[in-house]
Amino acid sequence: MGGAWTKEFADAPDALKCNADHRTVVQAGGVTIGGGEFITMAGPCSVETERQLMETAECVVRAGARVLRGGAYKPRTSPYSFQGLGEEGLKLLALARAATGLAVVTEVMAAADAPRVAEYADILQIGSRSMENYALLEAAARTGRPILLKRGMVATVADLLRSAQCILSYGNSQIILCERGIRTFETATRNTFDVAGIAVLKEATHLPVIADPSHAAGRRSLVPALARTAVAAGADGMIVEVHPHPEQAWSDGDQSLSFAEFETMMADLVPWCELQAQFRRVAEPVA
Amino acid sequence: MGGAWTKEFADAPDALKCNADHRTVVQAGGVTIGGGEFITMAGPCSVETERQLMETAECVVRAGARVLRGGAYKPRTSPYSFQGLGEEGLKLLALARAATGLAVVTEVMAAADAPRVAEYADILQIGSRSMENYALLEAAARTGRPILLKRGMVATVADLLRSAQCILSYGNSQIILCERGIRTFETATRNTFDVAGIAVLKEATHLPVIADPSHAAGRRSLVPALARTAVAAGADGMIVEVHPHPEQAWSDGDQSLSFAEFETMMADLVPWCELQAQFRRVAEPVA
Amino acid sequence: MGGAWTKEFADAPDALKCNADHRTVVQAGGVTIGGGEFITMAGPCSVETERQLMETAECVVRAGARVLRGGAYKPRTSPYSFQGLGEEGLKLLALARAATGLAVVTEVMAAADAPRVAEYADILQIGSRSMENYALLEAAARTGRPILLKRGMVATVADLLRSAQCILSYGNSQIILCERGIRTFETATRNTFDVAGIAVLKEATHLPVIADPSHAAGRRSLVPALARTAVAAGADGMIVEVHPHPEQAWSDGDQSLSFAEFETMMADLVPWCELQAQFRRVAEPVA
Amino acid sequence: MGGAWTKEFADAPDALKCNADHRTVVQAGGVTIGGGEFITMAGPCSVETERQLMETAECVVRAGARVLRGGAYKPRTSPYSFQGLGEEGLKLLALARAATGLAVVTEVMAAADAPRVAEYADILQIGSRSMENYALLEAAARTGRPILLKRGMVATVADLLRSAQCILSYGNSQIILCERGIRTFETATRNTFDVAGIAVLKEATHLPVIADPSHAAGRRSLVPALARTAVAAGADGMIVEVHPHPEQAWSDGDQSLSFAEFETMMADLVPWCELQAQFRRVAEPVA
Repeated sequence: MGGAWTKEFADAPDALKCNADHRTVVQAGGVTIGGGEFITMAGPCSVETERQLMETAECVVRAGARVLRGGAYKPRTSPYSFQGLGEEGLKLLALARAATGLAVVTEVMAAADAPRVAEYADILQIGSRSMENYALLEAAARTGRPILLKRGMVATVADLLRSAQCILSYGNSQIILCERGIRTFETATRNTFDVAGIAVLKEATHLPVIADPSHAAGRRSLVPALARTAVAAGADGMIVEVHPHPEQAWSDGDQSLSFAEFETMMADLVPWCELQAQFRRVAEPVA
Repeated sequence: MGGAWTKEFADAPDALKCNADHRTVVQAGGVTIGGGEFITMAGPCSVETERQLMETAECVVRAGARVLRGGAYKPRTSPYSFQGLGEEGLKLLALARAATGLAVVTEVMAAADAPRVAEYADILQIGSRSMENYALLEAAARTGRPILLKRGMVATVADLLRSAQCILSYGNSQIILCERGIRTFETATRNTFDVAGIAVLKEATHLPVIADPSHAAGRRSLVPALARTAVAAGADGMIVEVHPHPEQAWSDGDQSLSFAEFETMMADLVPWCELQAQFRRVAEPVA
Repeated sequence: MGGAWTKEFADAPDALKCNADHRTVVQAGGVTIGGGEFITMAGPCSVETERQLMETAECVVRAGARVLRGGAYKPRTSPYSFQGLGEEGLKLLALARAATGLAVVTEVMAAADAPRVAEYADILQIGSRSMENYALLEAAARTGRPILLKRGMVATVADLLRSAQCILSYGNSQIILCERGIRTFETATRNTFDVAGIAVLKEATHLPVIADPSHAAGRRSLVPALARTAVAAGADGMIVEVHPHPEQAWSDGDQSLSFAEFETMMADLVPWCELQAQFRRVAEPVA
Repeated sequence: MGGAWTKEFADAPDALKCNADHRTVVQAGGVTIGGGEFITMAGPCSVETERQLMETAECVVRAGARVLRGGAYKPRTSPYSFQGLGEEGLKLLALARAATGLAVVTEVMAAADAPRVAEYADILQIGSRSMENYALLEAAARTGRPILLKRGMVATVADLLRSAQCILSYGNSQIILCERGIRTFETATRNTFDVAGIAVLKEATHLPVIADPSHAAGRRSLVPALARTAVAAGADGMIVEVHPHPEQAWSDGDQSLSFAEFETMMADLVPWCELQAQFRRVAEPVA
């Protein structure tokens, strides 16, 4: 159906256009994204301590997550805010991977850090503030690692695809797109979750698309509902913030789920994922 | 959980706040909205001809809709555009109701028209352009008919609740809220469907909340996906545009489903609604 | 230069397009708007008491205003907020006109009120919440009074012109457009003042365009700077909120100027208006 | 008056707050920004050829500009679009400075490029896409060169100040803020020029603030009007795109002024700048 978007994505790169014969399937640390299974990536906003990370990793793997998230390098929205543990954080992520079998995704903030992050992580995340940081896109792409590309707070779907095309042009086609909410006048949620954007991206491109309900909602009580809508919209997975003690988190505590909340959400989500998988098999029958 | 919203909805009216003991259930023309069943309202953007309306009504009732929509009075975004059949359109809606058993919802555009529209329709729709037309809110409320209140294109969730409170203050508590997309910089969709707004409204108030995936998407290929997300977000129903020949529709043809598309969507939606109903029963067990 | 806008305003009505030979000049209560002089409309947000209104009228006429503003009918954003004095307020406005020679502009909120408001007021204001209230546009247009049409909070410039065209189609060409800020994610100001919109409207149409710096800014300290920018953008005037005791105003106190602040602003604005008038004479020499 | 903003900028850094005793004055290549004179920075979007740049530099210095702008490194919004001449472009800028006496401002896109750009340029520009690229902010700040910090397309005024504070925290206080339009639903202009943001920044901080009317407008016919509004809002200067043959420009041709247009605008702007300077002297009398 990608052809239907001709007008809107007139300048969208041919190489990304959806077609019947090809869908990108990303392989990362033993996990397959875009292959039909709904993949959950979960973990703390920031890697804080070994204990915090290990406990979280054990919780999320038990509850069904396949990828561990955790920030080692944090955006310095204020020069006095916590900036992440850096390489020490990367080492803790690798440790948690060894202990649990989870793959690891973590954000790379600076082009110079890309090789080091790629040493430790299975997937390199480009944050929404960096979606148009072209030097960073190049550096991350050239590591050869799969890239999780978050939509900018004010980026259109077409803008997001232009950044994806940049990554592709450096020879890296292992790209996962991520919808995480856009900035609008609405203040009841941190961002406005553009769930239709997920459906548009699935129609327009052959790349896997995941959702970030935590940053979209900005508060934990909404995360499970947004996760269900992501499944219903056809997302290939999601990335969620989980913390042993959300109220004590060094960053983004309001939107982090406790272990119990995460476990409940994951259990509740199973039938939705099954239904979507069944629905997709009918809609896209294998030849 | 409504209490969690204290800060955001500090000025939200107590009378609308969610509480454990009470949920508003709207009764209209034999249909119950907000009672647990996902209610579909469907029909053409504009009532054009008897044949167009009757055929559509028969299609949508067969496919599972419970309410017939159709505009008799249209917004004159241009003075030269079609402005609706007026009372003749109302009569055709009543005829279709008699033939099919569907309840009827139609928009009232002007305070002076409210009594006449209330004679024919089971539910009076306040369009998104009219959400803050206080004279109209009063006139519609005073008819005693249930009100379908659409969120303004740039209204916050809190703004929507203020308009609901206005209706309530005129003694009418039969209010259905409707999320239909907000205006943002994104152009791949006609509006940005604020699916989180549905979840917020369900948490914050005791009123039924429905979705309008047609106006949110602006193009028919996205409507089924958005309908699924509305179910997943906990909506009590949806309102959808359907036309015998969308490409010939006098208004909103791009976003209207054909009969075949509507039937497929409705059949596909059944297991999602069942899952949501089951999920809700678990989450809100009857004492 | 209106031709340059062909693409953007492809659906803009020919009747509104700028052309070399014709500019609409609005005559209202002895005041000429769009004739080259920068016209200030000033007064309280709401008409509260005779003393409040008379004192304000005397202040603003002394300081150079030509039109008195004041709300007799207020938007009921909450059913418990002040809703205006109604006809009593209109009578006070007429009294103030008689005492000062100022023309009167006041908002009409409901179609049914239009004839009564037109009895007392020289200019009927359509508020930003009503820009797409077509029944109201018709009722106001048919009174024959000049119309001050405020841009909706989320209306594009093209949307505003469509509403102007509606008024025109009812035989009323005495239309003044008003830019008053649009809703964005920015919170440092109440709305985002789209000063470029003024320049666009002056290029694209032959209608007079004024600014509302009070509602755009939302706080009084910014009003004088925005007034200067309106002059610089080529506006034909402005509408400003002034109150004897802003901190005691029944509505919009934060953005109302005190008498002293208004007088200072008006005195400071004189050379800017002179410069703009001189600049305009050079740019548009009379044949 | 900075104190008035306490609530809105509760988290704004004290070090940036406006106070009576101190205003930052930036010195760069013999030019003083923030010292009372309205400073114009002008030149092509991209440095294309020696001839293009030299002709433009000669035009703009003759017309009154004090700083030459020109991109040597361009954002790769598409990997196939022109990405700038790189160091060759920097050398041409230095050549033009030697020939004309203009200071040079140019964008740095990647942290790794900062030292090289600082070798050639008097002011380092951080583009709107890079406002939250913290690695780049640090690298640019540490060169010691003055920084021209453009507001992100979706950044609030408070966000912009946080980025300024980051630069400050690296020991560089020579910061010029730049308002260049924000992304909204309006499509008649490329961005929505937030002229009130200039006034807010002048009230809230002691940093110089300039406008970019070219990127805000997106089309050349609006640039002179927006330049006048920037003067009226109290901006300390502006940055404008000028090209010998705008219709042949390799980038941003629609918004670039021709030489004749630039000269006319600069001549027309003189009395506005004089008026603002006079106004400012009255408003802020020297002790």
